[in-house]
Amino acid sequence: MVSKTSARFFHRLSTIFQPISVVPKNAEVKKVDITSRSQRLMLERGIIRQASPGCFHLLPLGVRSLEKLTDLVDTEMRKIGGQKVVLPTLTNSKLWEVSGRLETVSSELFKVRDRHNHGYILSPTCEEAVSSLVASLAPISHKQLPLRLYQITSKFRDEIKPRFGLMRGRQFLMKDMYCFDVDLASALVSYKEICHCYDRIFEKIGINFVKVLGSSGHMGGNLSHEYHYKADVGEDKILSCPKCNYFANVEVSGEQECPKCGNTSVEISSGIEVGHTFLLGEKYTKPLNATYLSGDGKPTVLQMGSYGLGLSRILAAALEVLSSDDEIRWPPFLAPYKVIILPPKGGSKEEIHLKNSNLVQSLYARLEQVDTLKNNVIIDDRINLTIGRRFLEAKKTGYPYIIALGKKITESPSKLEVTNLQTDEQLHLEESALLDYVSPKETCAVDRLAFLRSSTPI
Amino acid sequence: MVSKTSARFFHRLSTIFQPISVVPKNAEVKKVDITSRSQRLMLERGIIRQASPGCFHLLPLGVRSLEKLTDLVDTEMRKIGGQKVVLPTLTNSKLWEVSGRLETVSSELFKVRDRHNHGYILSPTCEEAVSSLVASLAPISHKQLPLRLYQITSKFRDEIKPRFGLMRGRQFLMKDMYCFDVDLASALVSYKEICHCYDRIFEKIGINFVKVLGSSGHMGGNLSHEYHYKADVGEDKILSCPKCNYFANVEVSGEQECPKCGNTSVEISSGIEVGHTFLLGEKYTKPLNATYLSGDGKPTVLQMGSYGLGLSRILAAALEVLSSDDEIRWPPFLAPYKVIILPPKGGSKEEIHLKNSNLVQSLYARLEQVDTLKNNVIIDDRINLTIGRRFLEAKKTGYPYIIALGKKITESPSKLEVTNLQTDEQLHLEESALLDYVSPKETCAVDRLAFLRSSTPI
Repeated sequence: MVSKTSARFFHRLSTIFQPISVVPKNAEVKKVDITSRSQRLMLERGIIRQASPGCFHLLPLGVRSLEKLTDLVDTEMRKIGGQKVVLPTLTNSKLWEVSGRLETVSSELFKVRDRHNHGYILSPTCEEAVSSLVASLAPISHKQLPLRLYQITSKFRDEIKPRFGLMRGRQFLMKDMYCFDVDLASALVSYKEICHCYDRIFEKIGINFVKVLGSSGHMGGNLSHEYHYKADVGEDKILSCPKCNYFANVEVSGEQECPKCGNTSVEISSGIEVGHTFLLGEKYTKPLNATYLSGDGKPTVLQMGSYGLGLSRILAAALEVLSSDDEIRWPPFLAPYKVIILPPKGGSKEEIHLKNSNLVQSLYARLEQVDTLKNNVIIDDRINLTIGRRFLEAKKTGYPYIIALGKKITESPSKLEVTNLQTDEQLHLEESALLDYVSPKETCAVDRLAFLRSSTPI
Repeated sequence: MVSKTSARFFHRLSTIFQPISVVPKNAEVKKVDITSRSQRLMLERGIIRQASPGCFHLLPLGVRSLEKLTDLVDTEMRKIGGQKVVLPTLTNSKLWEVSGRLETVSSELFKVRDRHNHGYILSPTCEEAVSSLVASLAPISHKQLPLRLYQITSKFRDEIKPRFGLMRGRQFLMKDMYCFDVDLASALVSYKEICHCYDRIFEKIGINFVKVLGSSGHMGGNLSHEYHYKADVGEDKILSCPKCNYFANVEVSGEQECPKCGNTSVEISSGIEVGHTFLLGEKYTKPLNATYLSGDGKPTVLQMGSYGLGLSRILAAALEVLSSDDEIRWPPFLAPYKVIILPPKGGSKEEIHLKNSNLVQSLYARLEQVDTLKNNVIIDDRINLTIGRRFLEAKKTGYPYIIALGKKITESPSKLEVTNLQTDEQLHLEESALLDYVSPKETCAVDRLAFLRSSTPI
């Protein structure tokens, strides 16, 4: 949870651990490891730092952003009756033997033996564990269904070649929901409801996404959709048919023509998979014996769905889509701070003009009172640096609103310079007008929403 | 973060995944695994569920409680300039080779090899990793110190014999802070400040704790304190000297007499270690080359402290101390919900009396408006069960306030029955008086505070 602001407390950039590390342009060694723009920018701006291949330290700005995404997902999961749990990282290998996956995905599993020589895997996903949990309960009544359990925890995959920073790492933060229903029809109702929940989450993040028919891959099951952000570094190929609005992973559709309408003028683009939904049926519940008692008291195998969101990947992919080569751009909803205030350089005539005024503090306090900005304002108090230098840094880190107390602060009435990185507008405004300017609701306008989502109806 | 309440939203017990599983008294098999009261109660009441020895599923009530503890710790860490990070679970074994711990604590480490045969451990603690992170930065200036990084993440230990449920598991939730300072004197100032922060956290939780001189064990270093809850199942022995207020782990003091005043009438008690502070000096920073630039521009080895709080252990230990054999008692601050409302049984004369009234909903809404109860009220809407049955269950799960809409609801004026599990009071109150009754601030009274903390001055 992100910090609360008390009356005496100011977020100050000088106290933030953000080790800037510009990689020299000619550093040959580094080029091998840096495989995407978001990865480079996040490393350079002190958002993450590599610990070992595919494993990253999340630094404070990165943690703030991921906690915001976590809060958003928690809120939406609760709206559809999601019950939050935490399953262990260590999963008994025997459960994966039962499902057959210990063999089929063996090379991607990190395996551990305890001192008694019992085998575990570091969970990359938890279909077996959660089925086993449900199977271990006293029989569930059909009245208790659907049961929707979810967690937001680190998952692990022994990638042969980790790349793109947080996008394809060996440790990643994933939200996984498992839904249990009485029959396939009910499971499909759940499937649609959870897909709509995903739509809302991606709409809130605000980046155009494509929802496509997915390949079930090693997960198995009856039906699957993928959520993608389009980007050159995306490792999936997406087929879009402009004629009938059909979207699919080419693993499902092929690349030549739309399987729905036969149109051959299809578009193929690269996508980063940021979410995946699976209607699994009995694939895991049957071998692991996860059952419920039907109306006539008979133990009946549960129908299951599995729903993943790659939270750390969403963050990196969002930056990949929005950023330029030199400057980070965050989805405003996920920016570590939404507003940065740049007070004048120490000793400048603007600073002398402001002496004995508490303009910075009162501006901070008023911004914090704006509903969408609460706990989202930071002051770059490093006033030994020029305001211009700090402005360039603020642009690189990508604070959605940069408020500089520049030359016009000495005019009467005094004006603040606000830069809106979403629109590239720069305005000089008096304080009250500025507060209006940064106050609008951040949810997407209706016309934008229609544009955001391209999807195949379920 | 715990859920927000919208106008239309009610927390309802029927929607909570809380698989009650009473272990039969004579179940021989189970007795082997259940080694403490808190473990048994948490299993029985559906707070946790065992996945494998020492690894537990946290179920929704347990997750809510731990998220509250996490929020509390986040808030207090921020007050002392703590910067939240997330270090990877996988730590390169080489770092532990450098510090020497790969050998000294080898048997307790879970070890993993990736497909390229590189060795990692599942981090039980992160002194090496964080020192290596700091060493990898462009040189830190002395002006940037102290640097206080912390995380709240799962840690791992290959316990030979996991026991007491969450108290000695193989996966546990730990808050670990690492503080870097310019010299030992400054590191000691940090040490004291962080210890005071720990005092505040334990005071807020509200269970009597003892702060003792600790043994540095495999961590090494110059100075160490431990925070303990006294309980029979505690695995540490604590010496207390009533004469000079000296407290120490007997590993430091011996068991016979107080090393400070020579008093031989000392008290020895069992303690559960719930927090540990270490002033480590250069033990990790020197071999891992974590340095800063001093005023004269010289690279100088950082002085480090390490500060741990076992969050999942605190929760279990708190329940161990407060609960009876049959009924859970939570520290009110950490209870998953603070108030439960029990509406009348369906078809009862009380229910018929309330028909067409919205008493339950309005009571819920008013309770939620009490500052300390926001998002902390739940309705036991299983009105197919008698109110008496639900009352007994509510006592077992340990909701601090139980509000029953019993017989006196039909009187005029109508009265609610409130049971306060902290004081064992049971009162019949009109709604406005009830709101007053549950409204007092939950912080400890001043006289209680003095009693709470027994500690050796640093």
